Amino acid sequence: MSIKSKNILLGHGSGGKLTNDLINDIFIKKLSNKILSTLEDSAVIKNNKTRIAMTTDSYVVDPIFFPGGDIGRLCVCGTVNDISVSGATICGISLAVIIEEGLDISILERIVESIKKTSKEAGVGIVTGDTKVVEKGKVDKIFINTAGVGFFDKDVDFSYKNVKKGDVIIINGEVGSHGLAVLNERNNLGLCGDIKSDAAPLNGLISSIREIKGIRCMKDLTRGGLLTAINEISEFAGVGAVIDEKNVPVSRSVSSASDVLGLDPFYIANEGKIVVVVDRKKADEVLSTMRRHKYGKKASVIGSFTSDKAVMIRTSIGSTRLAPMASGEQLPRIC
Amino acid sequence: MSIKSKNILLGHGSGGKLTNDLINDIFIKKLSNKILSTLEDSAVIKNNKTRIAMTTDSYVVDPIFFPGGDIGRLCVCGTVNDISVSGATICGISLAVIIEEGLDISILERIVESIKKTSKEAGVGIVTGDTKVVEKGKVDKIFINTAGVGFFDKDVDFSYKNVKKGDVIIINGEVGSHGLAVLNERNNLGLCGDIKSDAAPLNGLISSIREIKGIRCMKDLTRGGLLTAINEISEFAGVGAVIDEKNVPVSRSVSSASDVLGLDPFYIANEGKIVVVVDRKKADEVLSTMRRHKYGKKASVIGSFTSDKAVMIRTSIGSTRLAPMASGEQLPRIC
Repeated sequence: MSIKSKNILLGHGSGGKLTNDLINDIFIKKLSNKILSTLEDSAVIKNNKTRIAMTTDSYVVDPIFFPGGDIGRLCVCGTVNDISVSGATICGISLAVIIEEGLDISILERIVESIKKTSKEAGVGIVTGDTKVVEKGKVDKIFINTAGVGFFDKDVDFSYKNVKKGDVIIINGEVGSHGLAVLNERNNLGLCGDIKSDAAPLNGLISSIREIKGIRCMKDLTRGGLLTAINEISEFAGVGAVIDEKNVPVSRSVSSASDVLGLDPFYIANEGKIVVVVDRKKADEVLSTMRRHKYGKKASVIGSFTSDKAVMIRTSIGSTRLAPMASGEQLPRIC
Repeated sequence: MSIKSKNILLGHGSGGKLTNDLINDIFIKKLSNKILSTLEDSAVIKNNKTRIAMTTDSYVVDPIFFPGGDIGRLCVCGTVNDISVSGATICGISLAVIIEEGLDISILERIVESIKKTSKEAGVGIVTGDTKVVEKGKVDKIFINTAGVGFFDKDVDFSYKNVKKGDVIIINGEVGSHGLAVLNERNNLGLCGDIKSDAAPLNGLISSIREIKGIRCMKDLTRGGLLTAINEISEFAGVGAVIDEKNVPVSRSVSSASDVLGLDPFYIANEGKIVVVVDRKKADEVLSTMRRHKYGKKASVIGSFTSDKAVMIRTSIGSTRLAPMASGEQLPRIC
């Protein structure tokens, strides 16, 4: 058992190595089945004629409103993106809220208004819901869970296991802004520059490329950031990766703020970023198609998978260094 | 707007009238669509060849372990039952946990063990999940959300709107034990007798009857109890109902405990009870089939729908009285 602590630590929710240990040592160990054990962003369920995708996420972000978004926008985008990276078309979202007694109803209304706007942008309906209220002090304002389902209506088969050495890694834009925007707001850090959450529903961007042959898989970058996601794919596919530091888009304000805070933007959470892994021969087609979409304008090739077992960074001065999965807790409650 | 308060009250989570007002005035008003607005236990989503059912529920029960069950058993049963009463066959459950920093990992293990056992009993897998951890004091121990999806693989079409006057109401057993078991444990009431939660996955019972022609709809009885459920069906179908008090199964211990506490068992939560609404001509067949199943041994005909608009109780002495939806908050955090 790799869990050393007898108690749950904040790091068990970080999305990094401690989370993986907890999931493997408790949830997978007891609940293992063929679908759950794939551990991809969405589960794929089949009956004799149909394949559907299913995903779930809880949102405990603090504060609930922050530059570029709020818990309502987040809870729609996260679920839309998890379903979409599987290649399925999202067809319904469930919305379950747990509210603290005494919450100002106008706050709930603002959140639901944001859910409305975001689900309209994504073109998907909230199809079912649940409302619970608990005594004051037993939950922090409001927590939201959304689950999503989608139909596989296109001929696609994305899986981390499809990834081979030589495959190219493309990202749709700049990393690190979501986590910093939440941190800045929560701790009144007063970071300058335009640091806003990138929370966005990416189903439109994804559907513009998903039928290009040669795409192996996609993954959205949330807790743990870019490098945790690359490590997860590497681990499943049994390959290594090299990421070219200078090719990863990072805005100037995120870059300076990260320097000041001693954070690495490659490990900071995003809510509107995906990586697409594609056969080298098709990389140009994917890249140019992505750049035509508003959420893909800064799409870039950032690296490739290799026959090594490790994930490496090629730094801007040409040296390489190891880039393992984040191990503990970096920024809590950012989604 | 029927919400009078500016702040969220515990009663907004009761499952009764205040919950309905909140759902209608905020969620339905802003998020309305054809599927959400049916407000049945499961949403029905279609693509060109397949219909699927989707549902969600959060579990905030306090305490997390109680006689007859725990939050783990509850979170599987609730979702299995919501999907099953729609007529669909459950094919996957998502599991999202929000854990308080510092929780003893052995407690999490007990809960996951219970989820394993219950999902095995129900014959359904946990297919995807999410784990969040929040700072000590920001959530009460552990909250769980499960969502479920099911395929409509049988030729059934259940909806509250199918209900007509004259249709018979059948229940699968005794009411009120779940809410009392939780209350007893939480408040150390020391109630005597065998008061245990009835939490049970009813998909087996339901699949034994669901292809009998003449079934209009089914509904599981959770927060708000039997009478809140009957009121909801009545409201949707535009009919009234009469429930025969003496025919509703209530155990002696629940009956005495309710008397002592001044609670009405017909409004107390259940987690292993359903009502089945059926054409009078088919009532005997449904009843005898249910009684052959371990979760239907005490199945009884408890009343019927009428051309009135109101839900009424025919008391054991022959008089009738109104039985409206529970209005405020009766027992908080029982599921």
